Amino acid sequence: MATHHAEIRLRTTAREVTVDITDRVRGIVRASGIQDGLCLIASAHTTAGIFLNENADPDVQSDLLAQLSRIVPDAGDFRHAEGNSPAHIKSVLVGSDVTLAVRQGDCVLGRWQGVYFAELDGPRARVATVTVSGDALV
Amino acid sequence: MATHHAEIRLRTTAREVTVDITDRVRGIVRASGIQDGLCLIASAHTTAGIFLNENADPDVQSDLLAQLSRIVPDAGDFRHAEGNSPAHIKSVLVGSDVTLAVRQGDCVLGRWQGVYFAELDGPRARVATVTVSGDALV
Amino acid sequence: MATHHAEIRLRTTAREVTVDITDRVRGIVRASGIQDGLCLIASAHTTAGIFLNENADPDVQSDLLAQLSRIVPDAGDFRHAEGNSPAHIKSVLVGSDVTLAVRQGDCVLGRWQGVYFAELDGPRARVATVTVSGDALV
Repeated sequence: MATHHAEIRLRTTAREVTVDITDRVRGIVRASGIQDGLCLIASAHTTAGIFLNENADPDVQSDLLAQLSRIVPDAGDFRHAEGNSPAHIKSVLVGSDVTLAVRQGDCVLGRWQGVYFAELDGPRARVATVTVSGDALV
Repeated sequence: MATHHAEIRLRTTAREVTVDITDRVRGIVRASGIQDGLCLIASAHTTAGIFLNENADPDVQSDLLAQLSRIVPDAGDFRHAEGNSPAHIKSVLVGSDVTLAVRQGDCVLGRWQGVYFAELDGPRARVATVTVSGDALV
Repeated sequence: MATHHAEIRLRTTAREVTVDITDRVRGIVRASGIQDGLCLIASAHTTAGIFLNENADPDVQSDLLAQLSRIVPDAGDFRHAEGNSPAHIKSVLVGSDVTLAVRQGDCVLGRWQGVYFAELDGPRARVATVTVSGDALV
């Protein structure tokens, strides 16, 4: 049994944006040599998230961010003095971590699924940790 | 250390419906022979979700689906040409994966907890992957 | 490869409150002796949740609970006879489980990240299970 740790470093370029990190996650899993097990992708931040969704039409991503801002409006009644409570709350709704199966040395993803980093209070330098845990080839 | 991969295949029968897959998850864990470790249940789709909730009163499930449609209304202002943006957004809110502990050869679930597949854009043929990773009996 | 099971027992003191369980999770991981792997924190309940967010300003937590009640109002139109449908729905939105990486014998958390138990229908006695799975020192 082996555990492989890696980081994905991002520099986001807008206040709210989603970044497709699927290829980077896949590259880490393949390079780890682990054949079967689990892969955790986790955000190290409290105003960002990790999620799976469609990677074909970019309108899906802009619709998601727009609806999140309707659910948690900037103009809401919040106490947190830093002024970014909506980003913290959206982070909880989106979630901070996703786990994928690793099979035959690759991530298991559905045909239309991509792994996304959600920037909710950018632009900033960000880190997602990727942890691959399982059995390597003998 | 061992990893066991399985799939749960479903045919959903409505546009929005939740399906209790607890017994199928449990059966996979028990059949895997793995005694202690983790069990990942993941949706392979971008308009569906996986979650844990009450499996006693079916009204909990209908209340959940109705409230999700209030939070992300069909009549919202969305760009995605396929017309199912609400299903994609609900999928992110519900989440695509759940991980359970495996202990003494079975899933660890609270007394009222069941594992659910959330169909958010059906009816369709769907797949949930179940990955059990841990130690088998020697 | 080893798996270590533990429980965190809580007695919540309000109908809705978040409880910082970071130190207890960290203590379990360190005591497990597992150096590299994954740590699952899971709620055993259907009206509670587990999430990661800021542990510096307590206003972030009160803003989160207040906004969740705007998204899923108590006065909504729900069928579930027990009257706590909002708590069940919030539990799905927040999520029941979080997985952390374990590296060098400790949880991997970002600088501002804490692990929280969300009580959504208290006060009650509650349990979160913590499962550490990975390689111990040889």
